[in-house]
Amino acid sequence: MTQNIYDDPTFFTAYSNLPRSISGLSCAPEWPFLESLLPSVSNLRVLDLGCGYGYFTRWAASQGARSVLGLDVSEKMLARAQRQNAISGATSEETNRIQYRREDLETLQLASGSFDLAFSSLTFHYVKDLARLFATVHAALVPGSIMVFSIEHPVFMAPKVPGWITNANGKKVWGVDSYMMEGDRVTNWLSDGVVKQHRTIGTLLNTLIEAGFRIVFVRDFGPEEALVEAGKTTAEERERPMFLLVAVER
Amino acid sequence: MTQNIYDDPTFFTAYSNLPRSISGLSCAPEWPFLESLLPSVSNLRVLDLGCGYGYFTRWAASQGARSVLGLDVSEKMLARAQRQNAISGATSEETNRIQYRREDLETLQLASGSFDLAFSSLTFHYVKDLARLFATVHAALVPGSIMVFSIEHPVFMAPKVPGWITNANGKKVWGVDSYMMEGDRVTNWLSDGVVKQHRTIGTLLNTLIEAGFRIVFVRDFGPEEALVEAGKTTAEERERPMFLLVAVER
Repeated sequence: MTQNIYDDPTFFTAYSNLPRSISGLSCAPEWPFLESLLPSVSNLRVLDLGCGYGYFTRWAASQGARSVLGLDVSEKMLARAQRQNAISGATSEETNRIQYRREDLETLQLASGSFDLAFSSLTFHYVKDLARLFATVHAALVPGSIMVFSIEHPVFMAPKVPGWITNANGKKVWGVDSYMMEGDRVTNWLSDGVVKQHRTIGTLLNTLIEAGFRIVFVRDFGPEEALVEAGKTTAEERERPMFLLVAVER
Repeated sequence: MTQNIYDDPTFFTAYSNLPRSISGLSCAPEWPFLESLLPSVSNLRVLDLGCGYGYFTRWAASQGARSVLGLDVSEKMLARAQRQNAISGATSEETNRIQYRREDLETLQLASGSFDLAFSSLTFHYVKDLARLFATVHAALVPGSIMVFSIEHPVFMAPKVPGWITNANGKKVWGVDSYMMEGDRVTNWLSDGVVKQHRTIGTLLNTLIEAGFRIVFVRDFGPEEALVEAGKTTAEERERPMFLLVAVER
């Protein structure tokens, strides 16, 4: 089973206080770019892989999705997602179209052709057997449908001891090591011992292609210069990409 | 016009002494992986974009390509490629199927549907208008055909002052900066002032997709552990990817 760090009390408390946890999609700087990759969700059957507090799940319901299934391995996240349905201002008609279910993405099973759109935010880097998961999602999507996801960028994931270093010219640079060595990366993000899976960008894309997906769009996410100028993020976030945003077609 | 650093005497002399310049494909550690992405070239009309000394051009002719057109911006490279035809052991029947032509890839024009395979080794990072070049190559290839290429990896290209740095744990890491800032990178590789074009991996792939190509395979190239153990390369080459190898279908 995937490490379920989100049910660790220390982690959960710290995670709850992230801006994106408090305010949702509008506080995730990559959201506008993910949204631009999505088709109209109106009347679609939507799958949200790693739904967390359910921000995307509720957004899809609010946009007229026929149904939205939010999956997460964390009981605490799902309980909070369910509570947030009530306090988010979602109508009961909208929440009726939402279902949350506890699932481990390592062992997930889905009915063939049962979804029209798959979405995942910052979850796939926790999954060890991505080939299995991608094959499962591919089979669960109808032909011509789209999967949009974000994942921690391999450049961000690769280092065994990640961090900024000052180079000989006094410039802060991101130290990359171990890029070609795929596998576990243990970091201390919000709490100690968070285990993630580093893969090269080639492995990630080839795993999608081998599952039958066609690559539609790939974006290294770092904030635009304008966001830095507006004081919404720091300049160093443009020195190295933090996330990779990907759209594929089934 | 593209900077023609290869006709600079200092650069040319230094370049001539690289193992891969002296011994060709067998001394390029990425070649077996590029070769594995190629279809059988037998009877194909092959395009070699940035042919240099013509090692791939002659290899394709030796494998039975119907014709091979090697393009390069450097007169010196093409003159040497022509001389090497004679001393390489290629038969006159093979060399008759080879044509070298001086071309700037920024302004290249090709007849529609005139090639069955395109190849390029470590050349596209010199090209400013990749969208134009990819559209030109796409139109020149017949439907269903393949383009295989290598390019310097964005992680390798990004830093404005590239190099290894020792981190707080005493480990040598590759310093990445300016990743999101695309454009000129001026380095002192073999001679001063070599200008290359940094692009994010997303931009590279999206430019291919927008030109009409389908992404077939992507490999971050760093040597396998076995090559390090055999003493054929240094361990640090596995800390960060140097090249990106890509296969796309027209």
